[in-house]
Amino acid sequence: MSEFNDTLKTKVSECEGLINSFLPKEEGYQKKVIEAMNYSIMAGGKRLRPMLMLEFYRLLGGRDEKVIAPFMAAMEMIHTYSLVHDDLPAMDNDEYRRGRKTTHIVYGPGMATLAGDGLLNYAFETALKAYPYCKNLPELDDEIEDRFVYALHILSSKAGIYGMVGGQCADIECEGRQDITSHELLFIHENKTGALIEASMMIGAVLSGADKEKLSMIEKIGSNVGIAFQIQDDILDVEGDESVIGKPVGSDEKNEKVTYVTLHGMEASKQEVKRLSKEAESLLEKVGEDNKFLSELIEYLISRNK
Amino acid sequence: MSEFNDTLKTKVSECEGLINSFLPKEEGYQKKVIEAMNYSIMAGGKRLRPMLMLEFYRLLGGRDEKVIAPFMAAMEMIHTYSLVHDDLPAMDNDEYRRGRKTTHIVYGPGMATLAGDGLLNYAFETALKAYPYCKNLPELDDEIEDRFVYALHILSSKAGIYGMVGGQCADIECEGRQDITSHELLFIHENKTGALIEASMMIGAVLSGADKEKLSMIEKIGSNVGIAFQIQDDILDVEGDESVIGKPVGSDEKNEKVTYVTLHGMEASKQEVKRLSKEAESLLEKVGEDNKFLSELIEYLISRNK
Repeated sequence: MSEFNDTLKTKVSECEGLINSFLPKEEGYQKKVIEAMNYSIMAGGKRLRPMLMLEFYRLLGGRDEKVIAPFMAAMEMIHTYSLVHDDLPAMDNDEYRRGRKTTHIVYGPGMATLAGDGLLNYAFETALKAYPYCKNLPELDDEIEDRFVYALHILSSKAGIYGMVGGQCADIECEGRQDITSHELLFIHENKTGALIEASMMIGAVLSGADKEKLSMIEKIGSNVGIAFQIQDDILDVEGDESVIGKPVGSDEKNEKVTYVTLHGMEASKQEVKRLSKEAESLLEKVGEDNKFLSELIEYLISRNK
Repeated sequence: MSEFNDTLKTKVSECEGLINSFLPKEEGYQKKVIEAMNYSIMAGGKRLRPMLMLEFYRLLGGRDEKVIAPFMAAMEMIHTYSLVHDDLPAMDNDEYRRGRKTTHIVYGPGMATLAGDGLLNYAFETALKAYPYCKNLPELDDEIEDRFVYALHILSSKAGIYGMVGGQCADIECEGRQDITSHELLFIHENKTGALIEASMMIGAVLSGADKEKLSMIEKIGSNVGIAFQIQDDILDVEGDESVIGKPVGSDEKNEKVTYVTLHGMEASKQEVKRLSKEAESLLEKVGEDNKFLSELIEYLISRNK
């Protein structure tokens, strides 16, 4: 895995370079909200969603980075706004994220709310910057006439009430309830976490010219990765090593939280992660050749120990 | 003005009919956030921004409502999300708006934050629904190649950090300060209030096929209306009739708030409203004929007594 880790490091830098070129300048009477937005984006993380987008774009033959970079930045802005608003006192009230003070702690909850709004809005402003590089791309087929508009459609629908926001709502609604069904839990996993992963992969694919058939395989890969990621989270909360994870284990049990593990048991949970991972792997092989890094990245995402 | 009031009433109903057809269904595990979104939209108001959009679209020859309706709904969603987040405890902490409990009072601040996010995101999802009706419209000129993409660009840029969000930030930054310059105050008026009014007028114009020259006249009309609207607000806070306005006057003085009136005096403020109004009127005549209702609507917006 050492070769993978080196490659991952290089790819993280590459993605950050592309994303950072779209960050707004901290100037004008609105300087403060822009500072808060950039502070939130610069908090780090592995840029996994933009990376998945870029890798699927390349896997399917995309070469011109100008086409994909605005959408990569847009995706990271949407992911970031969701964290900023999640951390607010009105939501999870978290003071730290990745070892750094959260946005509302540094800038106050009012400015943090506005920074989240600014990021979500600027995501769409940024994605629109891809238009000059997309407009001369050929039409794909009757179903996907304009790949630029279709990519915008995926971005907005997977981020909203039929995607991430929908999953966040269902998650809030489940707090403190013991009667959660496996169907409801699947909805939360698939939307709260899965939707942006699906969208990232799909946008990369659409902009490189993938057809509907490949697109639905890729959507399935993203869905599997998102769900497996969440089940692994639940597993680690029971069996993880605190010193590796960096947070206390057993919090789900303490909070009497219904998880995949409490609903189906540990053994079935591990098997489900394996099944989802295997299925994703076999779909990925059908989608495109020469996918070694992407395949390892997905494996890394799912089978992590922290 | 009785004829105008009758027409206004009819137009409000027309706009509401078009907007409501785009509201999401209250179903699924994400039902609660959709309820909170729709509660916020249904809180009423005169739908002035969508109305301005529709009227400019028609003034410049637009006929197909399918082209404009998704953008009208999108604009109202953006306006509404800004009110929902503004009312939050972390911002203005308002319990009532237009005589109804605010969204965070009914659904809690977490769900209200999410409802605002849902509305902003759904605004872009909704605007994209205009694509099938826009895609066969002819190219305008070298500058506005694709009027649909250009309308999306106006929507996102006027709503974000270089528009409304920027104005909100500057407004927050001015709280409690006595050293605010007239330049800074103009920035707040133009962006916090003016930007969505400008955007509404401009999107109506672009989608009907207006050229860049007309578009910049219309942007100026919107800017004048937004600024005059705000100055009138400051005037009414000093000279208004409490029983007509429905809220106490003198709050700016009590809060030692810097306003156009405190910076320039009452007489100059009234003259500036007149000047802005006159200039808007004369630009409107250049933009298009047969604009009686639109002209009265702008006059109504500016010279209101509440």
